[in-house]
Amino acid sequence: MNYSPEIKKLIEDALSEDIGTGDITTLSTIPACKDAEGKYKAKEDGILSGIDIAREVYRVIDPDIEFTAFFKDGDAVKSGDIIAQVRGNARNLLTGERVGLNLMQRMSGIATRTAKAVEAVKGTGAKIADTRKTTPGLRVIEKMAVRAGGGTNHRFNLADGILIKDNHIVAAGGITAAVAAARANAPHTLKIEVEVETIDQLREALDAGADIIMLDNMDNETMREAVKITAGRAVTEASGNMGDRDLRAVAETGVDIISIGALTHTVRALDISLKFTLE
Amino acid sequence: MNYSPEIKKLIEDALSEDIGTGDITTLSTIPACKDAEGKYKAKEDGILSGIDIAREVYRVIDPDIEFTAFFKDGDAVKSGDIIAQVRGNARNLLTGERVGLNLMQRMSGIATRTAKAVEAVKGTGAKIADTRKTTPGLRVIEKMAVRAGGGTNHRFNLADGILIKDNHIVAAGGITAAVAAARANAPHTLKIEVEVETIDQLREALDAGADIIMLDNMDNETMREAVKITAGRAVTEASGNMGDRDLRAVAETGVDIISIGALTHTVRALDISLKFTLE
Amino acid sequence: MNYSPEIKKLIEDALSEDIGTGDITTLSTIPACKDAEGKYKAKEDGILSGIDIAREVYRVIDPDIEFTAFFKDGDAVKSGDIIAQVRGNARNLLTGERVGLNLMQRMSGIATRTAKAVEAVKGTGAKIADTRKTTPGLRVIEKMAVRAGGGTNHRFNLADGILIKDNHIVAAGGITAAVAAARANAPHTLKIEVEVETIDQLREALDAGADIIMLDNMDNETMREAVKITAGRAVTEASGNMGDRDLRAVAETGVDIISIGALTHTVRALDISLKFTLE
Amino acid sequence: MNYSPEIKKLIEDALSEDIGTGDITTLSTIPACKDAEGKYKAKEDGILSGIDIAREVYRVIDPDIEFTAFFKDGDAVKSGDIIAQVRGNARNLLTGERVGLNLMQRMSGIATRTAKAVEAVKGTGAKIADTRKTTPGLRVIEKMAVRAGGGTNHRFNLADGILIKDNHIVAAGGITAAVAAARANAPHTLKIEVEVETIDQLREALDAGADIIMLDNMDNETMREAVKITAGRAVTEASGNMGDRDLRAVAETGVDIISIGALTHTVRALDISLKFTLE
Amino acid sequence: MNYSPEIKKLIEDALSEDIGTGDITTLSTIPACKDAEGKYKAKEDGILSGIDIAREVYRVIDPDIEFTAFFKDGDAVKSGDIIAQVRGNARNLLTGERVGLNLMQRMSGIATRTAKAVEAVKGTGAKIADTRKTTPGLRVIEKMAVRAGGGTNHRFNLADGILIKDNHIVAAGGITAAVAAARANAPHTLKIEVEVETIDQLREALDAGADIIMLDNMDNETMREAVKITAGRAVTEASGNMGDRDLRAVAETGVDIISIGALTHTVRALDISLKFTLE
Amino acid sequence: MNYSPEIKKLIEDALSEDIGTGDITTLSTIPACKDAEGKYKAKEDGILSGIDIAREVYRVIDPDIEFTAFFKDGDAVKSGDIIAQVRGNARNLLTGERVGLNLMQRMSGIATRTAKAVEAVKGTGAKIADTRKTTPGLRVIEKMAVRAGGGTNHRFNLADGILIKDNHIVAAGGITAAVAAARANAPHTLKIEVEVETIDQLREALDAGADIIMLDNMDNETMREAVKITAGRAVTEASGNMGDRDLRAVAETGVDIISIGALTHTVRALDISLKFTLE
Repeated sequence: MNYSPEIKKLIEDALSEDIGTGDITTLSTIPACKDAEGKYKAKEDGILSGIDIAREVYRVIDPDIEFTAFFKDGDAVKSGDIIAQVRGNARNLLTGERVGLNLMQRMSGIATRTAKAVEAVKGTGAKIADTRKTTPGLRVIEKMAVRAGGGTNHRFNLADGILIKDNHIVAAGGITAAVAAARANAPHTLKIEVEVETIDQLREALDAGADIIMLDNMDNETMREAVKITAGRAVTEASGNMGDRDLRAVAETGVDIISIGALTHTVRALDISLKFTLE
Repeated sequence: MNYSPEIKKLIEDALSEDIGTGDITTLSTIPACKDAEGKYKAKEDGILSGIDIAREVYRVIDPDIEFTAFFKDGDAVKSGDIIAQVRGNARNLLTGERVGLNLMQRMSGIATRTAKAVEAVKGTGAKIADTRKTTPGLRVIEKMAVRAGGGTNHRFNLADGILIKDNHIVAAGGITAAVAAARANAPHTLKIEVEVETIDQLREALDAGADIIMLDNMDNETMREAVKITAGRAVTEASGNMGDRDLRAVAETGVDIISIGALTHTVRALDISLKFTLE
Repeated sequence: MNYSPEIKKLIEDALSEDIGTGDITTLSTIPACKDAEGKYKAKEDGILSGIDIAREVYRVIDPDIEFTAFFKDGDAVKSGDIIAQVRGNARNLLTGERVGLNLMQRMSGIATRTAKAVEAVKGTGAKIADTRKTTPGLRVIEKMAVRAGGGTNHRFNLADGILIKDNHIVAAGGITAAVAAARANAPHTLKIEVEVETIDQLREALDAGADIIMLDNMDNETMREAVKITAGRAVTEASGNMGDRDLRAVAETGVDIISIGALTHTVRALDISLKFTLE
Repeated sequence: MNYSPEIKKLIEDALSEDIGTGDITTLSTIPACKDAEGKYKAKEDGILSGIDIAREVYRVIDPDIEFTAFFKDGDAVKSGDIIAQVRGNARNLLTGERVGLNLMQRMSGIATRTAKAVEAVKGTGAKIADTRKTTPGLRVIEKMAVRAGGGTNHRFNLADGILIKDNHIVAAGGITAAVAAARANAPHTLKIEVEVETIDQLREALDAGADIIMLDNMDNETMREAVKITAGRAVTEASGNMGDRDLRAVAETGVDIISIGALTHTVRALDISLKFTLE
Repeated sequence: MNYSPEIKKLIEDALSEDIGTGDITTLSTIPACKDAEGKYKAKEDGILSGIDIAREVYRVIDPDIEFTAFFKDGDAVKSGDIIAQVRGNARNLLTGERVGLNLMQRMSGIATRTAKAVEAVKGTGAKIADTRKTTPGLRVIEKMAVRAGGGTNHRFNLADGILIKDNHIVAAGGITAAVAAARANAPHTLKIEVEVETIDQLREALDAGADIIMLDNMDNETMREAVKITAGRAVTEASGNMGDRDLRAVAETGVDIISIGALTHTVRALDISLKFTLE
Repeated sequence: MNYSPEIKKLIEDALSEDIGTGDITTLSTIPACKDAEGKYKAKEDGILSGIDIAREVYRVIDPDIEFTAFFKDGDAVKSGDIIAQVRGNARNLLTGERVGLNLMQRMSGIATRTAKAVEAVKGTGAKIADTRKTTPGLRVIEKMAVRAGGGTNHRFNLADGILIKDNHIVAAGGITAAVAAARANAPHTLKIEVEVETIDQLREALDAGADIIMLDNMDNETMREAVKITAGRAVTEASGNMGDRDLRAVAETGVDIISIGALTHTVRALDISLKFTLE
């Protein structure tokens, strides 16, 4: 995996949270030098994500543990598939079990849900994107899971994207002024996105030169009109409770992007087990 | 809120993740000295949790922000209720919006689901408990949310509870030996829990003096028998995909505790909005 | 100042570095309860930056210290001007002296140099931008200083901007393929910038749909042609040892942005003194 | 390189700053398993410093990267010299490029300037020293660069040296009292330095038993007299805008040390390039 | 040693404290590439603890250092015994000398004192336990040392044990109410301990269902009566200045546990030397 | 208390260690809004140290807690004296009890022992100093305690003092060469100390210009001769198991400093209690 200071910290913090002052059951009952082997098995169908994270968890705990993956992020796994195998010191394997599983199950749950959304809009030009409604502390890996599921990422934080919403518009004195302020003050490497709720706002945003238009909580009819008016002058993004909408119908309005908070804020972990055999 | 170094770190890390090098939209469009007021509104019915966390998020950002809560953790909120109100510097309010919401929505989702499970077993003697299948980095507040929903907490980490599972039993040379090893090596302040899958294992665990018996993946019939055999000599805990079981039926077997991983690993965030008015 | 976890950490680390195990001279010679007053004075003309950082340094050390600024970031100061005044506990004032000064002098040096570059291109349409050639650990405040000097910021890190250079082009199999790969994999909120060294590369990048073209190390003649060919289809950015070039001549080629590494990698601190009077 | 917790932290923080949530260009365009080779080349003459730091940057990123240095800290390099070579995973090489360069260029700039100052006083007994006017967060490596240039280090922080200045003197009730207070309260392992501006102060400091006398902002004539009066009873150190003085003339007054803030506060990075070849 | 994030942090912090900005004596006088060998020798008799910590100190500093232990935690060492041997880079060996020694000497001092207490109660059923009166920052390894000496651990922190003292009793409205409150709110995996000072309190605590009774500052007569009344319904723990009591006499009252703050708050380090031979 | 990043971190780490995931007893039994008052009482005679640290512990936990001290560091307290009083939220008072006590008891134990050593040498010119044999993580406050007891501090870490020992001498090729190497490479603000075991070594060290001579493990006779030979050319420091020596006899040899590792490595905590009254 490419070096990532964020993921390194996330894993170390998760281990520290789970281990506390020590895995007292394991230390009490497992001899220091026993080895074991474990198998990760899918207990239901889904899209895998987080296999490199699980590997990294064990690398942090004990570099001598061997981790062999049979699938990679983005692969479809079926119930019963052996996803990966680990071998090494039994104590260290048991101590790291839960953190790796928690992360991989959660990521695979996100990837699986994303893949369903991607499938729903297949053949239309629309892409499925995430939002900032991620679990605090896990954003970087939750967005990795969205990519594994075939989705694309919206901005990672408040610094790497400009998204002008109602309050910014009011404070700046209108859409035109807000876009101008953003253009004057922000790095030229970022696109300027404006959230609009009406066709009038859309026109003003386009005239102001917005690069992306977020069509917020619009019905499909209005969105179709918005796409027509935009006519390629900006990227169009459908947003607002998209987790509860008929995604195909939304996609068929012609929008470029559908961003869905529920991809990460309402997650059903994929069921994966890890069973050990002592040696 | 009682002083908590863990929660302080969790909030600071979440803000750091979301703000990155700066909230470029807000800094570009909102004047430095503008004030605003915001209202948190429930968009659906549920059990509230995380209100003190949201308050703490703003205290970290700017101690001059006033945060007034109208509900407290564990309260039922109805769609449309104003949960809390914030007032202060507009830039700081906008910059902190998402982190507070993400945490409170997630925690309220957990509390709401927990409350449903508690409701399902009402009148039986069974308690609803969580597990270690929490979101890495958020365990301490997810367990707080479980309590807000009327549930009780299982151990927080590998150091504050002894849970002897199959591998520990194999390595120690049987249940009796494993319990003895734990009793010899672990603090006397911790109860010893043993996971059993059969009635035979149950008997051995009871004879070994286990304080808690985890009845793993048993059907209701077997659990009823297990409770009868235990006869108060140990606490009984039903476990294993309890998120998919009929909780009332499980509770009526007479078990003391039902522990449910899905309370925290499969979360639907409660819909809460935060709308600002600039002044 | 708007809440910034990065700046908070930067200041705490700088204080920790400078104070070590304690300011032994001050603790030995200054009574614990003595107060003092200090004045920051400009010892040469320049553009001020870092005044809020100096204030924050003292806020971290001792919230009871009063800090009154007479100038703000971006103001021109003349030799002899009193920039700000501090009052409070003498020990804490002396202990924090050097860190605040080091930061403000450095930032003002950057702002002053940037302002000269901005002045040089005044009246042309060109903007002066920084690069990632900043001092490790200080990027966020060095870029703040560039803004104070009237410049604009290029990307803050490898995550908030796409800049396709020679190696990326080779690995991806050409400019067209590299732009397509970036468009497929990166957030749609980021513009795609391509570094080109020849007019042929420029044409390919434009055809591939690049949003920004970095004209690397071109002579003014070639740049002028590049601007003409681009014809507004992309933002043009002049780059490559711009610290040694005649900026006016570069600007007159019609480029939109001139990015200059030397703004931050070759800094002459502005001379500012801080003199205390004990009370 | 000898184990240094400070340098380890400095490098990790710098990488975290530059990488943010991930090097999106590289991840989008470079295949995960491609290798590359890179060469660091001097683009101008100077004194090298920071080669071990650049090596350490890559060791943090990826221990499998091979780093071969052809020069070492303190060596003179000429424009065109290949300083070092790196080989390994292309993604990791590209991701770490800027941090290593930024640090090595800055350190080499400091070493080069220091070497010029050392050359200027060659043959006199004077040594060139740095100050605490370093870049916040980088002091330990900037002082390493001064040593690479042939200079010597003044104190590293407020805890490892005693420097009694005007305010300490006023608060303690005179030079004699201040020196006595320092001697009574500080570790006996530290020398006591007193900053003086006049010959009278010098005499008092010598009588008080100061180990080092800082001659602050004196003209050469006065310094020569000060050296004569001191007559070996203390180390003499010339200080105060020494970056703008004729160093040879200062050295010829007979002072032992010339300390120059500009060595580190006014830095011109040495031009070094890093070019990669993909394999 | 089993992976422990707490111990890793403790060692890194200790090294950072001791090394500061660098081991200036060693860097000045020892060539970079010299090797050395060192021997840890016991200078008095005692029980060894901390050998794995000393090994880990050197692993953090330099993974190439070879560390060979001839004794393990819990072993009795005699004055003159060679405990372990290290070989590797001389600079790194010298730089890490003090931290490893300080930790191992302190831990062995605790183990030795604990072993004496264990010896004193040999043959009675009583166990010797520690308390939370440990050295801030070192609790996890001080409790490891207590185990090496044959003792057992009381709770590690305020979260992994319930200990109801006088104030909790007053606030909750009596022992019965306090125990009920703890049972309702705390994880079911923790035992409930109540501190009592009188026989009446003891009876109330037993009736309330306390799992452990702390007999605080009782004379042996009263303790004997308390043990008789308890009659196996709860674990009994003698506490209160046990460091100054005749432990055998206390043990003979029949208590299960004797907890002694002095094991960790009043420590005499075991004398161990580390001598190097340069090669 | 003067701002100290080290002490702030030390206290936060200690609280984090002791509180873990939360003070479960207090949270279960004490209502959120109850107030309490507490009194710190000396249970034996001694010299107080750490009163500002105890205050800071409560400031970190809850800035609204009032802390009133009746004694200050260095004061003699008698058994029964009320040292300080705290008032505020009962939960927060109880949660912080142990950390503040552990630190203050330990520091007062060190101060008390130091004061006895100082008393023993009263009237001779000798000063009592500490060493680096401190508790890892607590050095800065243990050295503060030594000062409270009337002692003086040796170096704080490997960077703020030069101490040439046997291995440095061997590696450098003799005392003369080692002193020269240190003088050439180390900051001129540090004194150079050489450890000698014989009179011959002493002479060589004096000729080499050592500023301080550590007389290691010499009998009093030899030390007296060493002092005579030194004749004021260097500071003399007696060292080596001084905790077991007759300090007065050592002092009467005429040495300037007696440094005693046992001051901090063999500590008997002073008995101080903290009793609360709920309101």
